[in-house]
Order: sequence, then C-alpha cells, then structure tokens
Amino acid sequence: MAAKRNAFYAQSGGVTAVINASACGVIETARANKDRIGKVYAGRNGILGALAEDLIDTGKESASAIAMLRSTPSGAFGSCRYKLKSLEANRREYERLIEVFRAHDIGYFFYNGGGDSADTCFKVSQLSATMGYPLQAIHVPKTVDNDLPITDCCPGFGSVAKYVAVSALEASFDVRSMAKTSTKVFVMEVMGRHAGWIAAAGGLVEDEGIPVVILFPEVEFDQKKFTARVEALVKKHGFCTVVVSEGCHNADGTFLAEQGTKDAFGHAQLGGAAPVVAGMVKDALGYKFHWAVADYLQRAARHIASATDVKQAYEVGAAAVKLALKGHNSVMPTIERTSDSPYRYRIGMAPLDQVANVEKPMPRKFITADGFGITEACKRYLRPLIQGEDAPKYRNGLPVYATLKNVPVPRKLPAFDMR
Amino acid sequence: MAAKRNAFYAQSGGVTAVINASACGVIETARANKDRIGKVYAGRNGILGALAEDLIDTGKESASAIAMLRSTPSGAFGSCRYKLKSLEANRREYERLIEVFRAHDIGYFFYNGGGDSADTCFKVSQLSATMGYPLQAIHVPKTVDNDLPITDCCPGFGSVAKYVAVSALEASFDVRSMAKTSTKVFVMEVMGRHAGWIAAAGGLVEDEGIPVVILFPEVEFDQKKFTARVEALVKKHGFCTVVVSEGCHNADGTFLAEQGTKDAFGHAQLGGAAPVVAGMVKDALGYKFHWAVADYLQRAARHIASATDVKQAYEVGAAAVKLALKGHNSVMPTIERTSDSPYRYRIGMAPLDQVANVEKPMPRKFITADGFGITEACKRYLRPLIQGEDAPKYRNGLPVYATLKNVPVPRKLPAFDMR
Repeated sequence: MAAKRNAFYAQSGGVTAVINASACGVIETARANKDRIGKVYAGRNGILGALAEDLIDTGKESASAIAMLRSTPSGAFGSCRYKLKSLEANRREYERLIEVFRAHDIGYFFYNGGGDSADTCFKVSQLSATMGYPLQAIHVPKTVDNDLPITDCCPGFGSVAKYVAVSALEASFDVRSMAKTSTKVFVMEVMGRHAGWIAAAGGLVEDEGIPVVILFPEVEFDQKKFTARVEALVKKHGFCTVVVSEGCHNADGTFLAEQGTKDAFGHAQLGGAAPVVAGMVKDALGYKFHWAVADYLQRAARHIASATDVKQAYEVGAAAVKLALKGHNSVMPTIERTSDSPYRYRIGMAPLDQVANVEKPMPRKFITADGFGITEACKRYLRPLIQGEDAPKYRNGLPVYATLKNVPVPRKLPAFDMR
Repeated sequence: MAAKRNAFYAQSGGVTAVINASACGVIETARANKDRIGKVYAGRNGILGALAEDLIDTGKESASAIAMLRSTPSGAFGSCRYKLKSLEANRREYERLIEVFRAHDIGYFFYNGGGDSADTCFKVSQLSATMGYPLQAIHVPKTVDNDLPITDCCPGFGSVAKYVAVSALEASFDVRSMAKTSTKVFVMEVMGRHAGWIAAAGGLVEDEGIPVVILFPEVEFDQKKFTARVEALVKKHGFCTVVVSEGCHNADGTFLAEQGTKDAFGHAQLGGAAPVVAGMVKDALGYKFHWAVADYLQRAARHIASATDVKQAYEVGAAAVKLALKGHNSVMPTIERTSDSPYRYRIGMAPLDQVANVEKPMPRKFITADGFGITEACKRYLRPLIQGEDAPKYRNGLPVYATLKNVPVPRKLPAFDMR
C-alpha cells in the first residue's frame, strides 16, 4: 500500500464552460480515495499559485459546492496565461514547483489545460525524476480549440461547438425573416486563431436548411470568391449566414481583423473579422448585413453546454486521478471514439511526450473543395460532440453557478521572486 | 350571432425570440373559435404580403406545426421593415389594404409589432371606418426595445433581458478567472438605440457579486468618468464587466460606434460601440480586455428565452383574438403588473390612439445617480421578466424550430404597383 499523499490541481490558459466539471471529477474522485489521497490543493490562478505557494484547500468546500462545479463555467480557482520557460531557460521555476510540492507533501500533480500546459506537465514530471522527488504528473485535457493530439476531442470544444451551432441557427432564422426588406447577410465571428474547429461547427446548421459560408484559418481568404459565394446563396435562398474564424487571414498572412484601420485621431483601431467581412459584402453586393462577435460568450456559455462535453470533462478529471492511483505518470487521459452513430467512446491514455507541443490541425478532408463549408465526414465527427443538454439550475431567472470560498493553505516557505 | 369572417395576421419590424409565440396564440385561439373566424391568413413578409396580396393560408399547417411556433424564434411568415406613410401621403396603400381585405373577406386585422406598427394598425382601423368597410384592427405588442406605452412590458424584451443577464454573468465568471494575468475588463455590446432597457438587464448580475458598468443611451457618455469607474472596480475586484448599449453617445450626439474610423483605403469603417469602449480602457488604464457584440444572437436566442416572456407573448396573441370577438377595435392587449414579488399581472387593453407613436423611455429613477448602474427599483421591475426557463425540444443537439410550409392563397386581384 502506497503512502497517503496530497494532490495539487491547477487550471491553465483560457477557461471553458466545462473546465470546472473536470475539477469536479478530480476532487470528487480524490475524495472517494481518501485512503490514498490526502488533501487536494488547488493553485490560485493556475501554476502561479504553485510558484507563489498560494494554495487553496479544497477540503474546506462542502460536497455540494464541489458538485456544483460540474455546472459552473470558468475556472473556479482562477486560471492564468503564464507559460513556464524551458527547463534550461528557467530551471529555478521548476525547482520552485518541486520545493513547494515537497513542503506540502504533494505526490500528485494534475494540470488542466491545453498544449502548452501539457508541455509544462511533462517537464514537471521529468524534473521530479531528475531531482529524485516522487511525483506523478497527469495532464487533464481542456481546450476549446480542440487541437490536442491523440484524443478524439478536447473537453470544452463540444460546448463551444454547440453554442456556435445553436446561435448560428437562431440568427439564421432571424435573418431569413428579415431578408425581404432588410438584412440579407448575417456574419458571426468565432474563436480559433490557428484552427477552424469552432467555425466548422457553424456548418451543422446546413442540416436545418440554412445556407452558410464558413471562413476557416486553414483556407487563404479570397475576397472575390467569397463575395461570389455569398451572392449565389442570397440569390438562391434570399439570405445567408457567414461564420468567420478570428484566425481567417489573407494570402499574405495578415488577419482579416487587422485591416490597418485607424480612428479619427490616427490611432490604430482594434476590430474584429466580422465587421470587415460584413463591410466587404456591403461594398461588393450592397446587401444589408448584421454582424456579431461572440468572444467570451461562446466559451463561457454553460447554459447551453453539450451534455456529452460535460460528461467527458468530468470523466477525464476522474480518470486522471484513477490513472495516478494505478501508478501512471506523465500521461493524459484521452477520449477514444469507437463509433460515430450511435456515438461510443472510451477513456484512453496518451504519454505526455507525444502530446506536448503537438497541435492537431483540422483534416483537409473536413473542409469542402471550395473551402467554404464542411464535409459529411466533418459533420459525422461533430454531431455527437454537441449532443445532449445539461442545463444548470436556475434561481431568479439566472443560472446558479458556484463561487467557492477558496480558503488559502498556510505558507511554509519564503516568498518566491517572480521575476 | 355575427357572420363568420376571415382574419389577417402579420409580423412587423425586427423579429424576436417570442413573436412566433404570439402568432401561435392568435392562430390557436382563432382555431378554437371556428364558428366566428374562418381562415387565418398571414401576410408573407409582414404588411407587404397584404399590399402584394401575397397571403399565406395558415389553415394548411397542422396543429403540431402551429404549436411548435411557441418555441420557434424569428418570424415564421417573414417580417418587414416597411413603414406605411401617412394616410394623406399615401392613401392608395391603405386603400389597397382594404381592397385586399375585402377580396378575401377579412374582418379581423391582427398586426404584431412595435410603435410604428401600432400606428399603421391605428390608421387601418380609421380608414376602414371612413371607407365603410367593417374591420376590427387589433395590435399585438412586440418589441425587444420595451418602449411601447401603457403596457408594463413588451413581449420579446424579457427574453433579450434574460439572454443579456445570463451572458453577462457567464462572461464575468470567465474574466474573473483570467484577471490575474490576462483579461481584466470584458465589454459586451447590446441593442437599444434609443432606450437602455436591454443594457439595464446587464445590471442584474450585480446580485451575483459581479462588478458591472452600464453605459446607457439616456446618459451622455463621459470618457473620463467612465475609465475612472472601471479603474475603481478593477482595483477593488480585480476585474469588471461593461455592458454598453449600441445607442450610447457622446455629449454632441455622435454614437460611440461612429468614431469616424477609416480603413487602410480611407473608407469609413463600420464598427461597434464595444471595441471603441474597450480601446478607451486599454488606452487609459492599460488593462487587457475582450469584447463581444451580441447583435441578432440576443433577440433570436429562443434557447434561453424567459418563460414569463413566452407565456405573455402567447397570451397577448390569444387576447387579441378574444378582444376582437368581443367586438373591440383599434386596441392593443397590454400587460398590467399588479405585484412585483410574487410577480402578478393581468392582460389589459389600451386604445391604439394612445399607443401609436408614443415611446416609453426608461424612468430616470431606474438609473443610479452616477449614471453607470441600475437602481433597486429597476431590479424590482426587471427580475420577474426574466423568470423561468422554457427550453425548446432538441434533436441531434440542436433546438427543433418550426419551418412552416407557408402555402400561398390564390390571388383574386390585379398586381399592385409597389412604387
């Protein structure tokens, strides 16, 4: 029987509608294994909490508060955008992590994030080995970008995909109603700087009879082809919807969102891709348009989360703890799809050296030959991920989301110079 | 016993998440009174359908299709932005309406829209009297702008308010998670060119502990006061959320959204108020920000509609038919609030000459003295309107929304010159 040790859990990078469901999975599963796992400490604001020895004692939270994490968007312990440098460039940060873990008898390191975080997790596990400090480092996958390798999908993505598909459907019904005398084109900007996974979800509304044009980061933007496509759809259907990825760019690599716009005082103006695209439609075709930029709304929209996504987010959190208890180290639980329809999957495992710093692009076969739509193969991939609803509870018309007490753990070490 | 006559129903202006619930109320109530009401004809694309004699026979739709309208956003028969001129300026359009109604034995005119539409409805009722054509014209209230007089609230508004409050809450949780190392200010732009009702709904998240700044069209924008307020909130809470109305404007009357921005080619650039406000925060305070523009998403979001709003939208549709059957003419059903908490209301009635062309502003007592928030009186007004959820059915992860057959009624008249 292994000795009982404490666990550390932290949330990293952009948060999602379901990253707290993974936290719930980690904490509830740890609590169910009290013989093996003592305290679960969370890093306040992600890995910064470990560096600063700013730990949160999740043991101070009631079972019902932890259960509510399953239906609470965002990062309950705070996240951070802070990339640890390479071991060579900043060994002292890694050594500080080990020092803090040693001071608090932390034997399990659960890191909940995307590709960069997987790399950090991998390095932590390497260093613990070279420093002779026994630590099991398990990465818990999370990213709306859906770009982690090996796993079939990433928790967080399915809910954004559902938000985008539902929103595109609803707005398309709206513009269809207005098209005779008013708005004919609706443009919706979505996240995805490097990959078009999120934009692709907008293509699911084709199944509902909606004419849609998708602008992917994977496809160089061609203004003439684009406006010709919009014109053809409007002539045929009376209206169309455009879903544009924030990462959509011109042949020279410049983002559509960066059109060198300046305000009245000559300051560079911050804009989105949606108004730029909408302006092109207006200039070329004269159609009245509306545009929206969903931004945080899409990744925070727990109220319209995919039940499949919530379930998987919880499961990878729970699986991370189980893998640790089985003695695994430097791994990440994965989602292995075994069937599209009916959708079936199982939880697998990938070694972190194969995950760290590897980005999974969207397959070219998921994009139609003209570059403006998604293929049936892509739809088969996406459909199961948006299945099911998992509404939060409501009180006074608003969702009931958990705000934890986040009680600090007393410090044992001198302050760390965060230079 | 009055003779059995047909009814005409049309949707006017910007559509909402619940205008089809009103259509459902009209049609189901008419069907329940087949002894008095024959066919219900809908105007294709609103009043244009009447002018062009482009009528839809709603009798060709099944009971289940009509029932589904209750949970379908947008305008199922098409809407239009087309304001009839005054009786003096374009009497021939009004006479054409009466001519079409006469050809199809239409004795009931149900017009579903906002202030302009109420005026049209009023004029139609006046003309029918002067032309000796018996017609009962009933206006069915609808507008996300919530600016119709007499009625306590307008169907369509409660669901937008719920969308805005829920979205602001979710995005605020997100920015709170990120604030330590990244985004500190989230800016969300909402509709409301003349009145701040929709923006006000963002203030409801204060009850959930969220620091929020509201920028109303009713309050002249003062950039220094605004950035000072944001700075104070971020210093206290670590983050803040800004909800800006599209109608927010400077002291000289220019909209924030119109900053005279030009693109690289010198073309005037279309932008939103949100990026402008976000840029001010960045310039004055250096805070990292994110911004969203909800646009159509907010008024089409049937998936997060307020159950109170859906119910009231149905009820005013049903009441319109009942009022007609009782012999009323030139009136609009209203919502009369009798209690805030518990929320109670009854359906009342207002004469159209008191509704047409009257805009209800937001009371100044609903806005805090500093101009950046809503008062407790405003919260008491708003809270009941976002109560309750009324989720649509889902299939394959997407809401099931009705697309009707919209079978045309054979024409009986020569074409009308829509000059």
